[in-house]
Amino acid sequence: MPIRSIAILGTGLIGGSVGMALRAQKFPGPILGWDKDQEQLHIALQRGALTEIVDDPISAASAADLILLAGPVFTILDWMEQLAPILLPHQLITDVGSVKNPMLQRAQMLYAGAGRADFLGGHPMSGKEVFGVSYAEANLFHGSVWLFTPDKQAPQHPLAAEWRSWVERFGSRTLDLDAERHDELCAWVSHMPQMLATALSALYQDHFGEAEDMRAIGGRALREMTRLGASPYSMWRDIAHTNADAIGSAIAALEQRLAHLREHLKTPDLRDEFNRANAFRNSPPFK
Amino acid sequence: MPIRSIAILGTGLIGGSVGMALRAQKFPGPILGWDKDQEQLHIALQRGALTEIVDDPISAASAADLILLAGPVFTILDWMEQLAPILLPHQLITDVGSVKNPMLQRAQMLYAGAGRADFLGGHPMSGKEVFGVSYAEANLFHGSVWLFTPDKQAPQHPLAAEWRSWVERFGSRTLDLDAERHDELCAWVSHMPQMLATALSALYQDHFGEAEDMRAIGGRALREMTRLGASPYSMWRDIAHTNADAIGSAIAALEQRLAHLREHLKTPDLRDEFNRANAFRNSPPFK
Repeated sequence: MPIRSIAILGTGLIGGSVGMALRAQKFPGPILGWDKDQEQLHIALQRGALTEIVDDPISAASAADLILLAGPVFTILDWMEQLAPILLPHQLITDVGSVKNPMLQRAQMLYAGAGRADFLGGHPMSGKEVFGVSYAEANLFHGSVWLFTPDKQAPQHPLAAEWRSWVERFGSRTLDLDAERHDELCAWVSHMPQMLATALSALYQDHFGEAEDMRAIGGRALREMTRLGASPYSMWRDIAHTNADAIGSAIAALEQRLAHLREHLKTPDLRDEFNRANAFRNSPPFK
Repeated sequence: MPIRSIAILGTGLIGGSVGMALRAQKFPGPILGWDKDQEQLHIALQRGALTEIVDDPISAASAADLILLAGPVFTILDWMEQLAPILLPHQLITDVGSVKNPMLQRAQMLYAGAGRADFLGGHPMSGKEVFGVSYAEANLFHGSVWLFTPDKQAPQHPLAAEWRSWVERFGSRTLDLDAERHDELCAWVSHMPQMLATALSALYQDHFGEAEDMRAIGGRALREMTRLGASPYSMWRDIAHTNADAIGSAIAALEQRLAHLREHLKTPDLRDEFNRANAFRNSPPFK
């Protein structure tokens, strides 16, 4: 049974890009869209991310074989709650949230079992420091990885393989991870770097304000290391809240590392630290 | 009296790029080169960064109107020491070192006064995480800023204005700074970000090693934030040593900022921190 129709709840940067990627890859059926922000929704339609707008999330989800939840973490959890009683076993829900263990926990309560729809956690590693469907693009996922965190205890839903093949047609590599490992890894390689860029940018703002000489000499390094400082709180609040332990551990480890380096600016330990850093960058995919 | 000839001591990434930029801008006179590494020197000649190779730094400097010192900080200080007794008042020495106060101190001892050559501290903000003349390019300085730290107490040397105009022809904006302010600013916007990228990369190396899942999901954020982790110790040892106090203060400030953010991952203080970071990125030149 193929995916005949898709509903996208949340038609912003990621949801909109998924719609555009589906249409670029000639998905033949309707793509129904809903967003609480009417402007985002209409821009999404104009940009070809949807084939039609639906008035409420329940109607959109009910009418589709595959339902994509594309919002902040707590919004996704809330949608999961609302949709569980009304969806049917032939339907598959998937999401694009940046943490995965809270969804898996919720899915095991709400979606496992006879007579119910199924849930497959997903996470495209394709963010930007901007948000909104105006920045959406059909090739956003090209060359990046799309993580899945299936419930290993449960059989695969009949539509899951087809959804994975659409994701691959977007140009993503797919990779399955245990949900807890996903959240731990993302704390280190995505969430902590975001918090670091935020802390660094905020520090510069407090230390220098609008000082002209600082802004005149800031070069590529400063620009790169603070790029994510432009990320809005609204995109990160739920992630920080639901993955706080793992993010906190990663930040604490970085603090210790910085203190060590600071205490050894004039000793041979600095060379050892540069050598370790060089080793990290001299292995794929960075080399 | 125009600059008829230029000597470049240290023909690596920066020295080589200066030679290539001079020739691209049709500098009409000889460009003499010396480097302790014969291979770098011959590649520099092959790539058109020099018009001739000279056997030792003293002969190269003696034969030129303008002498560019392009090496690590302690090497520059050492060259300043060696050249002081033999250079003449019509000659101007300048450099491209990443700290400036140690050079100014040395210059005030060695170069100020009647019968002596003059010294003008310079610093192009155009580094890379790689080194060597193979990476040199004529347009390396295009669009970036080239800082000068003249001794405000001394009159400007007759060749200084012409050298500044060559730098502007390379496509750089020039900016004069007090040498101490230079070192303080660079500690914050260049040296601390380098140490941060090194600490972060080294931390990843220790925490994950060659773990395949981490390397598979590392995206743009990770790549950007660790790019400078590839920088070699040899380029940074002298900077860390000579600017340790200012770099240490900036790192300590970042540690505190990270600790504060870590303690507030679930509180409204996180929003305030994102807002401050957004403000930093919403002003030029970052916006």
